[in-house]
Amino acid sequence: MKEQLKERIALVDSVLDKYLAIKDNPQKTIYEAMRYSVFAGGKRLRPVLMLSFCEMCGGDVNEALPFASAMEMIHTYSLIHDDLPAMDNDDLRRGMPTSHIKYGEATAILAGDALLNRAFEVVSAYDGKYPERALKAINILALSSGTEGMIGGQVVDIESEGRGITLDELRYLHLGKTGAIIRSACTIGTLMGGGNDEEIKAADEFAKNLGIAFQIQDDILDVEGTEEELGKPIGSDKEENKNTYVSILGLEKSKELVKEYSKRAKDALAVFGGRAEFLKELTDYLTNRRN
Amino acid sequence: MKEQLKERIALVDSVLDKYLAIKDNPQKTIYEAMRYSVFAGGKRLRPVLMLSFCEMCGGDVNEALPFASAMEMIHTYSLIHDDLPAMDNDDLRRGMPTSHIKYGEATAILAGDALLNRAFEVVSAYDGKYPERALKAINILALSSGTEGMIGGQVVDIESEGRGITLDELRYLHLGKTGAIIRSACTIGTLMGGGNDEEIKAADEFAKNLGIAFQIQDDILDVEGTEEELGKPIGSDKEENKNTYVSILGLEKSKELVKEYSKRAKDALAVFGGRAEFLKELTDYLTNRRN
Repeated sequence: MKEQLKERIALVDSVLDKYLAIKDNPQKTIYEAMRYSVFAGGKRLRPVLMLSFCEMCGGDVNEALPFASAMEMIHTYSLIHDDLPAMDNDDLRRGMPTSHIKYGEATAILAGDALLNRAFEVVSAYDGKYPERALKAINILALSSGTEGMIGGQVVDIESEGRGITLDELRYLHLGKTGAIIRSACTIGTLMGGGNDEEIKAADEFAKNLGIAFQIQDDILDVEGTEEELGKPIGSDKEENKNTYVSILGLEKSKELVKEYSKRAKDALAVFGGRAEFLKELTDYLTNRRN
Repeated sequence: MKEQLKERIALVDSVLDKYLAIKDNPQKTIYEAMRYSVFAGGKRLRPVLMLSFCEMCGGDVNEALPFASAMEMIHTYSLIHDDLPAMDNDDLRRGMPTSHIKYGEATAILAGDALLNRAFEVVSAYDGKYPERALKAINILALSSGTEGMIGGQVVDIESEGRGITLDELRYLHLGKTGAIIRSACTIGTLMGGGNDEEIKAADEFAKNLGIAFQIQDDILDVEGTEEELGKPIGSDKEENKNTYVSILGLEKSKELVKEYSKRAKDALAVFGGRAEFLKELTDYLTNRRN
């Protein structure tokens, strides 16, 4: 599984490298800033999930690759804007200076904008055999990163800062902020791989549960991890008074929930039979990770 | 012409109103912030141009409408982000508080992101007769608002602040910052209206010249207009030491150029024969405007 994971990450990186090639023109800086954040050491979780669903459905991975790289661009733009002084005001991410620290705030805002925009440049350049399928996939992608998806979750996150929220509110927030694009990664992979409606529904169910397990694990690591493992200070959630699964439910209950949701995720893969081995192992790997 | 212009603006506004309907959910604020800036009194120049080219080519205006509203969303997002403290730091636009003054900086950043994102939600929801044409139009739209278009121009603008630039540099900057999406408005309108390659090329040539004339007129108005006409202080370009056509070429030469480029724009419409009357009159109207 780890070998295959490495291969898929390398494939995604090579395509990102191609799509984000630096142009030697007066706006060169923007390309440098986009690359800086995209190649700052992300886990490529979303693209890997997408490619895995595409392959599992017997699809041609090249059909999904532009979408996989677009997804990583959108994920990265959201981190750049999230880190801005007016938002979370973070100076470091994965042990490296954030975009606005490195390039200044104006360029960081534009680099985020540019990555979101570039995502749609890349997917709309589709010239394969299934234009209607691609159009549908672009729509799924856009909806998941918009006001009823990721951006919606960010808005709720900002508005809930500094006040205690309920478990339901926390779930709603994460369903948007992190869950929506994990779900679209899996459904787009299935769609572009030629999966049928039942398979798309299963991919969505898997992703919904994996997303929750992944987020709870994130909250746990902020308490239990080490600075070396995470590349950022431990206990920052508590210090910043953030609402997390751990702050609301405690550590033990949170750990139980990671197990429960990761089991639900794996169960949702039943429709794919033996072909789902990689994704099941990946689920265990992700929900037991230390960083 | 003015009657037809009013009708087209009203049509665009009604579609924007529909696409930006407020959802009564926890992230409601973002919809309010998006609407606030979109309905702050824009001229709807880009959507009107798009619809006009679509109609002139004998196309169904409904094929272009989602693209026309997407274009206005993209234009508005660029203004919201441009006004941010880290960028131009403007408190007023068209006589009203800018987004970050009204909603705070975090929400303004997200409202901009959300409008860019929503533009692609809207156009990818296409379910008309020509999916391949729509895919192509999405690509033109995305490229024109990206790093080789609008964002590229913004980067050059930021980097040229505080130093004198040449006329060539100024033209390059505006070709990206304002020219690129005026061009894509006209070419997408032609494409979605069923225009052929020659007509698309003519639309592009028209738009390139109109865009320059429009920008020079903007620079002239900052010197010659009144605060009542423009809804912002006069002479702000000079005060902020901005590079403009007037600062580089002087007022008289600038006025000559407006005439020259607006003539070139109209000449480019020859291929459309008598059907181009509206666009020719619109060109005169725009390049003689007082606000």
